[in-house]
Amino acid sequence: MNPPKTDARRHHDPAVRGFASDNYAGAHPEVLAAVALANGGHQVAYGEDDYTANLQQIIRSHFGATAEAFPVFNGTGANVVALQAVTDRWGAVICAESAHINVDEGGAPERMGGLKLLTVPTPDGKLTPELIDRQAFGWDDEHRAMPQVVSITQSTELGTLYTPDEIRAICDHAHAHGMKVHLDGSRIANAAASLDVPMRTFTNAVGVDLLSLGGTKNGALYGEAVVVLNQDAVSHMKHLRKLSMQLASKMRFVSVQLEALLAKDLWLRNARHSNQMAQRLAEGVRAVHGVEILHPVQANAVFARLPHDVSERLQKRYRFYFWDEAAGDVRWMCSFDTTEDDVDGFVAALKEEMAHA
Amino acid sequence: MNPPKTDARRHHDPAVRGFASDNYAGAHPEVLAAVALANGGHQVAYGEDDYTANLQQIIRSHFGATAEAFPVFNGTGANVVALQAVTDRWGAVICAESAHINVDEGGAPERMGGLKLLTVPTPDGKLTPELIDRQAFGWDDEHRAMPQVVSITQSTELGTLYTPDEIRAICDHAHAHGMKVHLDGSRIANAAASLDVPMRTFTNAVGVDLLSLGGTKNGALYGEAVVVLNQDAVSHMKHLRKLSMQLASKMRFVSVQLEALLAKDLWLRNARHSNQMAQRLAEGVRAVHGVEILHPVQANAVFARLPHDVSERLQKRYRFYFWDEAAGDVRWMCSFDTTEDDVDGFVAALKEEMAHA
Amino acid sequence: MNPPKTDARRHHDPAVRGFASDNYAGAHPEVLAAVALANGGHQVAYGEDDYTANLQQIIRSHFGATAEAFPVFNGTGANVVALQAVTDRWGAVICAESAHINVDEGGAPERMGGLKLLTVPTPDGKLTPELIDRQAFGWDDEHRAMPQVVSITQSTELGTLYTPDEIRAICDHAHAHGMKVHLDGSRIANAAASLDVPMRTFTNAVGVDLLSLGGTKNGALYGEAVVVLNQDAVSHMKHLRKLSMQLASKMRFVSVQLEALLAKDLWLRNARHSNQMAQRLAEGVRAVHGVEILHPVQANAVFARLPHDVSERLQKRYRFYFWDEAAGDVRWMCSFDTTEDDVDGFVAALKEEMAHA
Amino acid sequence: MNPPKTDARRHHDPAVRGFASDNYAGAHPEVLAAVALANGGHQVAYGEDDYTANLQQIIRSHFGATAEAFPVFNGTGANVVALQAVTDRWGAVICAESAHINVDEGGAPERMGGLKLLTVPTPDGKLTPELIDRQAFGWDDEHRAMPQVVSITQSTELGTLYTPDEIRAICDHAHAHGMKVHLDGSRIANAAASLDVPMRTFTNAVGVDLLSLGGTKNGALYGEAVVVLNQDAVSHMKHLRKLSMQLASKMRFVSVQLEALLAKDLWLRNARHSNQMAQRLAEGVRAVHGVEILHPVQANAVFARLPHDVSERLQKRYRFYFWDEAAGDVRWMCSFDTTEDDVDGFVAALKEEMAHA
Repeated sequence: MNPPKTDARRHHDPAVRGFASDNYAGAHPEVLAAVALANGGHQVAYGEDDYTANLQQIIRSHFGATAEAFPVFNGTGANVVALQAVTDRWGAVICAESAHINVDEGGAPERMGGLKLLTVPTPDGKLTPELIDRQAFGWDDEHRAMPQVVSITQSTELGTLYTPDEIRAICDHAHAHGMKVHLDGSRIANAAASLDVPMRTFTNAVGVDLLSLGGTKNGALYGEAVVVLNQDAVSHMKHLRKLSMQLASKMRFVSVQLEALLAKDLWLRNARHSNQMAQRLAEGVRAVHGVEILHPVQANAVFARLPHDVSERLQKRYRFYFWDEAAGDVRWMCSFDTTEDDVDGFVAALKEEMAHA
Repeated sequence: MNPPKTDARRHHDPAVRGFASDNYAGAHPEVLAAVALANGGHQVAYGEDDYTANLQQIIRSHFGATAEAFPVFNGTGANVVALQAVTDRWGAVICAESAHINVDEGGAPERMGGLKLLTVPTPDGKLTPELIDRQAFGWDDEHRAMPQVVSITQSTELGTLYTPDEIRAICDHAHAHGMKVHLDGSRIANAAASLDVPMRTFTNAVGVDLLSLGGTKNGALYGEAVVVLNQDAVSHMKHLRKLSMQLASKMRFVSVQLEALLAKDLWLRNARHSNQMAQRLAEGVRAVHGVEILHPVQANAVFARLPHDVSERLQKRYRFYFWDEAAGDVRWMCSFDTTEDDVDGFVAALKEEMAHA
Repeated sequence: MNPPKTDARRHHDPAVRGFASDNYAGAHPEVLAAVALANGGHQVAYGEDDYTANLQQIIRSHFGATAEAFPVFNGTGANVVALQAVTDRWGAVICAESAHINVDEGGAPERMGGLKLLTVPTPDGKLTPELIDRQAFGWDDEHRAMPQVVSITQSTELGTLYTPDEIRAICDHAHAHGMKVHLDGSRIANAAASLDVPMRTFTNAVGVDLLSLGGTKNGALYGEAVVVLNQDAVSHMKHLRKLSMQLASKMRFVSVQLEALLAKDLWLRNARHSNQMAQRLAEGVRAVHGVEILHPVQANAVFARLPHDVSERLQKRYRFYFWDEAAGDVRWMCSFDTTEDDVDGFVAALKEEMAHA
Repeated sequence: MNPPKTDARRHHDPAVRGFASDNYAGAHPEVLAAVALANGGHQVAYGEDDYTANLQQIIRSHFGATAEAFPVFNGTGANVVALQAVTDRWGAVICAESAHINVDEGGAPERMGGLKLLTVPTPDGKLTPELIDRQAFGWDDEHRAMPQVVSITQSTELGTLYTPDEIRAICDHAHAHGMKVHLDGSRIANAAASLDVPMRTFTNAVGVDLLSLGGTKNGALYGEAVVVLNQDAVSHMKHLRKLSMQLASKMRFVSVQLEALLAKDLWLRNARHSNQMAQRLAEGVRAVHGVEILHPVQANAVFARLPHDVSERLQKRYRFYFWDEAAGDVRWMCSFDTTEDDVDGFVAALKEEMAHA
């Protein structure tokens, strides 16, 4: 078969993969096939299409009868829309100091949402009721932005996981203080795969009010969704999404990607695979003398400490990022398309470079 | 050939089309083919990929050597990023009362950008130096948000066009007052096709400082770009895009869509076709007694006035929107996939319903 | 008696007065005496003082048992705090195009409050249900900032007045659409004096939900209050005031000024006097051939049209502002300290300059 | 002499003072006398008055020929205006975790200024170049709000002081990274008095770009000023002040208060006195067994740790605040009107209550 005609050309080598980010991967072929399926003809724009309607069924099958999905473009957008939804003008967000919303979103929560983040240092990216209490006070004090929502990330930015019970404890604690709980689930699939439970087990089953459901890192071209679990917690989500510049006109194409991932088990296959690659990578790395693994490897990330010059030489062979350059800490991410050969080749390269350390 | 495997299903009839919006159409098949081409392997996320690099060449071929494209997700995002780029905290935007940024973006410019819009009523969606002067004053008056940019739309929200000379006059006037000029080009392709000139002829050739380049309405799945023409007018566009929640992680897929459209002539083919369909539609409508066409049909929109009940019956057969329901005004949009049969069928239906008026 | 010691010196001539603004006047001596009375000793900061508590009694005597005052620094602050209180993140404000919030607050509502203003041109600065309807629509349309409050000014920026019935009609109309009504009362005293009714007659008695109560133009050094009339309409006013930078630490001094004005009749004496001076001025001006009075003179402002060169010569003798310089329109404001001699002298000067026109 | 007439009444006992805050004090009598002096007649509103012009001379006498004062209402306003002036839309502020802008302004910097605060824990409220470096990185990284200004407080929120050399080191470090330095000087007078140097010695002499100059805690009714020292660092301060709702219409009354304080030595007398009272208090407290003083007492604050129940009993006799209630930490502030008897009485009461601990 001839490839379909297009004036665009291929500019990259599709055989090259690294360990920099699960955002470096492309889209899963089944996702692309879904997009093609949804193409053609006219569908109502801005979310009144049949694909977005159908997505609601799928979301409910995962998260229960009250769940509702609001597809958006990207993770920053999902988080800022979700957090605005559960804060008043005077509200603030309690989160880990390492939270993506605090360190990786260019100040979008503050600038676009007017949100004050009340941050807490954590050893492993995870909040606890005790850690939350370091910022959970002063609700009646007008001199203080009012803590109205706790935002946690699952799996965390450090590749660690909350157990369902840990999240339940956070939700109980937050709710007891009148606060809502938001879960940043840009890698929620990796968490479910690793915990080997349905996503609902650590979200609505334990009290999470709303979440950012990641599609991009799970194999989509683009597209996430704010999923509202507790309808009493929010209102006018559509208005919030629009004014936050996150309303897709041709929304069918976001929704059908999420359908491709979530209708059956592609979301889980992709997540399991990337988790397994991370385990394989960690196992390989542990056998390399002089390289320290920094956090429990519970999802698709491996954090390690190794000599700086080794990292620099290794980066010439495989893309990856320093996490804390001064300390020599690096992050290696696996994605749905990481192969066993990729991992083994990388570990071999690491060994070689360490040998020259 | 069997269709590629996916768990998603087709939920719509791809044979159904209407006249509601160019956003109701899907993506052009050549755009989809381009996305597939860019898939596979790893590419640096957040815009450091090869497709975005290549896009810069293409943009320069259209807009000259100083042009630079910043791909974003949607039109609201493009406009709010662009307008923030040319305003200080104390700046304001002069625009037509009918501008999309004023009436159709849910207040995003005000809420997300903190931008005051200084609006001017226009008969046809077009500003002039004289109309601009109704708001262009008080630069030294701290009690007034300072006019720092004039934003025009080409083609306009009313389906009308500026000539290059008209835009030059606006730019000269704005620049003489120290203001920049932004062009909302969500339908810039339709304007170029109708004027039968390159896009640069009515943008950088006549003084436009930056523009929002539309992809979605021109046949993309999603994706627009802020195109900076006057590099002296802006700085830190990447920061602005990120904090405005418009930074795509897998940007290669936005860029390759724009490549598919702009590398050769797909952008123009699509725009010409939709313009021609609008001309055909207007011609057909003019022959229907009792239906008045409201604005010059210069791009892919036809505005008409007809009895309200006729519109309502017609809407049961074809999707379209009232523009001013009280006045009986409607808008009919053509898109790249509108067929001659679609138009002829619609005109026939209009005749039938008018006969029962 | 020797004047109290201070290192400050007098830099101005207290005998000079003009017609530029009621903000050019100083404070009424009784207000200064009140400030001195409240001085000395310690009082709880940020509004928990005895003067602010007492102010609540006074406010209730004027506006009824449910009224509550939140003292702030200035009119812009009062308006932005009040409007934030009755809008969600997705809310918008309907107001006259000539409203102070639209034309004279440097974009503070948009930049600080994230508020979209939906403006309506008016002949005389006054909204009506019909005029409101030009912007009151689209509550379910996420593409449109949601109209949630109508803001009117009494007396208006053009020196005109709403009757209580006119305000009632606006409130009924707004409430029927689920919108609140805010009254910008920076000159509410002038309105009450001119209508010869208590302030409550055209506020809570007819449905106004909250208002900005002016102190500065009525004879205070500084200080206004947001007065909530409908407690169900708002919440967390104290938080809003604080985050809007309008919380005075030594609030007793704002509150005691409002007490000096409102405890008995100083507010009314001041307003009546400035109104009477405006009537005297209008009467004098009407006798001058070639000068046209532009709006009904119902409060303390006189708008007039006269030859531009006459205005310029007159401005060398008395301070006042052009309102629309191109049209030759000027505004003359009277204040609590304007004297009959001031008015008569000004009219004589106007006559002289007109004689040379 | 009879007191001047006013309808306001005295509601408080001017003999009662506590140790809660320097904001609990009233205004210094010389400040009140200055306000009276500036009253009467008309003065141009919004800062074009003779008192504000004169204030510039005074400010230059303190801070050098390039200094310029922009009077505002309160400290939150001063800080938010100042920080907006030295940040772009993408900019962020590095400050101590304990900074007033971070913990005591209700989120105003984030909500009103859209400012991201990059905070650093400190032992004593003081930043150092090393501590700054914990947040001073990533200027080219669009995923991170760009550090553009370091904000320090002098004297700090913990009653400690920077030496001029320490501030010079911070300024040199900040400037070397292209960042500006803002000094929150709500208690700058206390710092100058304690260091026994002119204010310029630790501000423009060592590189501070702009500061918030406190008036209220130094004895004013209300009123602070943003003082720009480095004119190249800012622009359009007047616009920023206005859109931030901090523009006083009758600005003469803010300016004349600052004149009363700064024209000669009232600012210093007041500050020295409150500092001396804090020293006397600390000395007295040190003699009380079981009470620990927590920070160096370098300005007008004394922080102490004592049994919780003792504090609670003591609070029934004198107003003061817990600083960290769980730890038993309290803050005792002295002000310009604190007397030796006040201090001695308080220490005696403390002894009594400790005896019952």
